[in-house]
Amino acid sequence: MTYCLAIATKEGMVFCSDSRTNAGPDMLSSYSKMHIFQPAPDRLFTFLTAGNLATTQAIVARLKYDLENPDIINLRNCAKMHEAVRYVSQVCREEHSFAQSATASAGIDTSASVIMGGQIAGGDHGIYMLYSAGNFITDSDQTPFLQIGESKYGKPILDRILTRNTSLEDAARCAIVSMDSTIKSNATVGAPIEVLVYERDTFESNHYIRMEEDDEYLRQIKQSWNESINTAFSNLPKFEWEYRSANQTRS
Amino acid sequence: MTYCLAIATKEGMVFCSDSRTNAGPDMLSSYSKMHIFQPAPDRLFTFLTAGNLATTQAIVARLKYDLENPDIINLRNCAKMHEAVRYVSQVCREEHSFAQSATASAGIDTSASVIMGGQIAGGDHGIYMLYSAGNFITDSDQTPFLQIGESKYGKPILDRILTRNTSLEDAARCAIVSMDSTIKSNATVGAPIEVLVYERDTFESNHYIRMEEDDEYLRQIKQSWNESINTAFSNLPKFEWEYRSANQTRS
Repeated sequence: MTYCLAIATKEGMVFCSDSRTNAGPDMLSSYSKMHIFQPAPDRLFTFLTAGNLATTQAIVARLKYDLENPDIINLRNCAKMHEAVRYVSQVCREEHSFAQSATASAGIDTSASVIMGGQIAGGDHGIYMLYSAGNFITDSDQTPFLQIGESKYGKPILDRILTRNTSLEDAARCAIVSMDSTIKSNATVGAPIEVLVYERDTFESNHYIRMEEDDEYLRQIKQSWNESINTAFSNLPKFEWEYRSANQTRS
Repeated sequence: MTYCLAIATKEGMVFCSDSRTNAGPDMLSSYSKMHIFQPAPDRLFTFLTAGNLATTQAIVARLKYDLENPDIINLRNCAKMHEAVRYVSQVCREEHSFAQSATASAGIDTSASVIMGGQIAGGDHGIYMLYSAGNFITDSDQTPFLQIGESKYGKPILDRILTRNTSLEDAARCAIVSMDSTIKSNATVGAPIEVLVYERDTFESNHYIRMEEDDEYLRQIKQSWNESINTAFSNLPKFEWEYRSANQTRS
């Protein structure tokens, strides 16, 4: 499996992905699922991929390949984010259809999902979730994040913390905690964890970090979170019967 | 959907369940999924149910019905927990087979899963998860809890907090936080929340609470947890580049 998420705030975007792939539980490998494209100085795109690895690799390879062809729409020459998303969703649909037609008789699931985020100068930054079928959704003010893969374990913390006004650094920490909770609870999601922080209107991958399991900052985050959660827990209000038994002890 | 969980610690057991049932997203109702049986003074059993409502109701009705028949094994006359679990799993299998054979052509999913916990005098307390097929598993020292239904959202907090040495009250609070996180993230799980705390060797349902959405204690727990999570969050270690920019601001 996979867990990837993207967050869009007023200040910019955060992307976070794990690196575990598996073909059955006995064939685990490690692949980056974060693909950063900066085909011109006025634009930056990030893709997070989940699903069939052959399909997602085909999609990413195709996006690269198309860059060299100025006669078609590609990531270098498209004028607006909406145009870029429509182009990428078309690529997703084609690559998935191709894989599907070749494997139909084998019962193999060749579907893939992609989170795309980016900004082109003159327009806003935005994040999108693209399905195999080629349709896509974006985020909302109420839910300023998108997830693909094993999304349930890490959703509660996103629901509790994230708004459009969250700072980029807090959003990145929230993504890391969400990822850590998922890794702790599900063996098919695993390090290295990649995080990209993008400040709007910079068109640069401002802060990229890649954390192995024993990464010092990751260790600090995990330790701090675990200690705080335990403290938070011990501060929860007591049940009414606990006060009663406390009173009995004193009397 | 449903979310139910049971926790077994050295001191006893905790059971927690939501009450939402749905037949499609436009047909929500509220049913208790916690069923407490105390057929004799030396024993207590609790059942949490998920899945097809007709099947789970048939299972619970059958357990009650069988109590009146002293010629067969039932919850009143079985001598050990293992005997009780085998009897209940047989009931699950039969009721599921019956429902399945009647609905096979309609493509309806009649499967159900049941968490069973209890104690019979002279033996230990224990929790078990019973599948439709009639097989079952129990918990372990490493994972002293069992979940059915929408289990992923609420699992990280259980993984972080629970051990065999957790107090019953802390285990109950952990169950409530796990349930609250799930309700916050998934519309098919909803209040009222039922919680039962059982102290080992008492053979009584020591503390049973049923909390509506606006319950005062639930409100306090939610508020305290939300505040603590936000504090925990703001105490997370900063990224290296945040120190750098802080230094720049000062210079």
